[in-house]
Amino acid sequence: MSIFNVELIKTVDDSYEIEIGYDLMNRLIEDLETGLLGKIKKLSVITDSNVRDLYAKPISERLVQSGYKVDMFVFPAGEKSKTRQTKERIEDAMLEKGYRRDCAVLAVGGGVVTDLAGFLAGTYGRGVPFINYATTLLAAADASVGGKTAVDTPLATNLIGLFNQPQKVYLDIAAWKTLPRREMASGLSETMKHACLASRDMFEFIEEHLDDIFSYKRFACEYIAENNCKIKYAVVMKDERESGLREVLNLGHTVGRAIEAVSGYRLLHGEAVAIGMAAQVMLSARLGYMTEEEALRVTALYERAGLPVTIPDYIDREALVKKLYTDKKVRDGKLRFVLQKGIGDVVEFSPGVFAKPLEESLAREIIMEL
Amino acid sequence: MSIFNVELIKTVDDSYEIEIGYDLMNRLIEDLETGLLGKIKKLSVITDSNVRDLYAKPISERLVQSGYKVDMFVFPAGEKSKTRQTKERIEDAMLEKGYRRDCAVLAVGGGVVTDLAGFLAGTYGRGVPFINYATTLLAAADASVGGKTAVDTPLATNLIGLFNQPQKVYLDIAAWKTLPRREMASGLSETMKHACLASRDMFEFIEEHLDDIFSYKRFACEYIAENNCKIKYAVVMKDERESGLREVLNLGHTVGRAIEAVSGYRLLHGEAVAIGMAAQVMLSARLGYMTEEEALRVTALYERAGLPVTIPDYIDREALVKKLYTDKKVRDGKLRFVLQKGIGDVVEFSPGVFAKPLEESLAREIIMEL
Repeated sequence: MSIFNVELIKTVDDSYEIEIGYDLMNRLIEDLETGLLGKIKKLSVITDSNVRDLYAKPISERLVQSGYKVDMFVFPAGEKSKTRQTKERIEDAMLEKGYRRDCAVLAVGGGVVTDLAGFLAGTYGRGVPFINYATTLLAAADASVGGKTAVDTPLATNLIGLFNQPQKVYLDIAAWKTLPRREMASGLSETMKHACLASRDMFEFIEEHLDDIFSYKRFACEYIAENNCKIKYAVVMKDERESGLREVLNLGHTVGRAIEAVSGYRLLHGEAVAIGMAAQVMLSARLGYMTEEEALRVTALYERAGLPVTIPDYIDREALVKKLYTDKKVRDGKLRFVLQKGIGDVVEFSPGVFAKPLEESLAREIIMEL
Repeated sequence: MSIFNVELIKTVDDSYEIEIGYDLMNRLIEDLETGLLGKIKKLSVITDSNVRDLYAKPISERLVQSGYKVDMFVFPAGEKSKTRQTKERIEDAMLEKGYRRDCAVLAVGGGVVTDLAGFLAGTYGRGVPFINYATTLLAAADASVGGKTAVDTPLATNLIGLFNQPQKVYLDIAAWKTLPRREMASGLSETMKHACLASRDMFEFIEEHLDDIFSYKRFACEYIAENNCKIKYAVVMKDERESGLREVLNLGHTVGRAIEAVSGYRLLHGEAVAIGMAAQVMLSARLGYMTEEEALRVTALYERAGLPVTIPDYIDREALVKKLYTDKKVRDGKLRFVLQKGIGDVVEFSPGVFAKPLEESLAREIIMEL
């Protein structure tokens, strides 16, 4: 018998920039021309059917002019495409076109595109670099910081994936204008969640400037894009592997994700989160962590943004409660709720701590009422 | 416009032990009982139809006795199972059984099992820990050091995957006895490749003790298991991400992998590598890097081990040449050959250097002759 020690201690630098601005295509091209991807000259542009003509095609054409070999890989827009099958189809198409390890991936689109493309890049040739060109507020809120990439499976959302950091992220605010209002509101849902968990100032800014946001005023859009990044970054930096602290980002998501799944994705992610937030503030208020007024103020802002704050009738509440316990964050059948403390803070949350019986029964009650 | 810097510099410790010995099941249980996996109490045992009853089942039963929740996930033995579909089926089965992020994967089997299970572990819940219990010589030679995990696709072998380091590797030499002779020889093929590229002593040991190896004499098996690790480790440590140096491990693989693919996997990996090595030593000899006698000595050892050193008649040589250029290591349609220098060394190899026209045409000639 003998033991052989494999010593693998190393320093990894996964740092990257997030650039926030209007019409960032030129900035992307400049960055590539000044060496963002080193010697790589082959780019797989991954996008969806909504974004193809608006952004991915013009960007691809500019890249070809700059001397890149570019192919576009397009899948049907929507969360339903965020699957292992879509990933597989794109992988096969890239292989077919001769893409090997000497390529990079450019994701152009919303959160579904960036999640899927980032995961694909992480396992293509055991990892090729990728860049996110995010065209939606949800992607700006959700997919810009943190390196989480994943796909959904029939039994769980976002469970198969990777932590994988991009080379750079572009948040193109100009692109938000092309979003249907429903998508914009859905993105705003995660933004408001960030405000609720970390910044009363940001919450008040959104209350005051909700109309400016929906009319795409540049100052308002930049403010929320920047503050999304700041808050996520502050949380994620302290806990890159989600061992504990990062879970505060799941505020409203315990119920939200279950609703999203039970709705069969009739609800957008941000809509499901809005209902989850409504449930969460009710729970937090009943447990005494925030006042009834604060809870109502949160719910009112979600409503003003055109988001649902009650459970739609077509959702079976019993099925929803059952789904809660199959969430991927559920350990050994025990639930965990992140609870809000006033507006702009959360109740301290330790990795090993699960929902108390009182919290679980209150949550069940709230689901039945909501 | 604003730029937000995400600073992500960190030190990662991926160190692990490789334990080489006879009947290591008890050692595995001891390690688990003394905290190898921390608090994790749920184990997904991934194995194939050959290894299930011999090792995976007894190990699983012992784990259950030790208080673990264990499920076995079994797929049909063979390289043909090393696919995204098999990975997906096991993921779904694990989800169905309630496996979330609080689990670990225990791979019990040969290289196909460890490659697939290591990849699956790397993307399950964005990464859960895994342990390799390797039961074949090929796994000992190939899958023990280096952290390469992957699956095959219709268009490329090992192209979709991850670098993912296990918590520990067990190389159970006793298990080699249960291998069909053909599998043992296939594993020895990679071992002899290691000797050829890095150790004349090891090459001579194998020449002298080939019969001891095939009669599973403990000293001989331990010697080759240990020296496989040493050589691979020395190479991999200097180049974890395969930017250059690590490619020396592809000795014999440029042609070998193409033959494996063109044979439709009628040839085992090690058999295809044996033919690739025969082609490689001919090429190296013709280019003057080794003598004719040395080349014949290598080929003779492969033959004595019962491995093929000529291209089977059913393989279309034109198709083979074409396949060479679709290998995943081929960049921009340019081939790269690792060439042997005498016995126990390789010709220095730089990342940017491709095969010269002379080398390519010689290689083509050799393929037509072999």
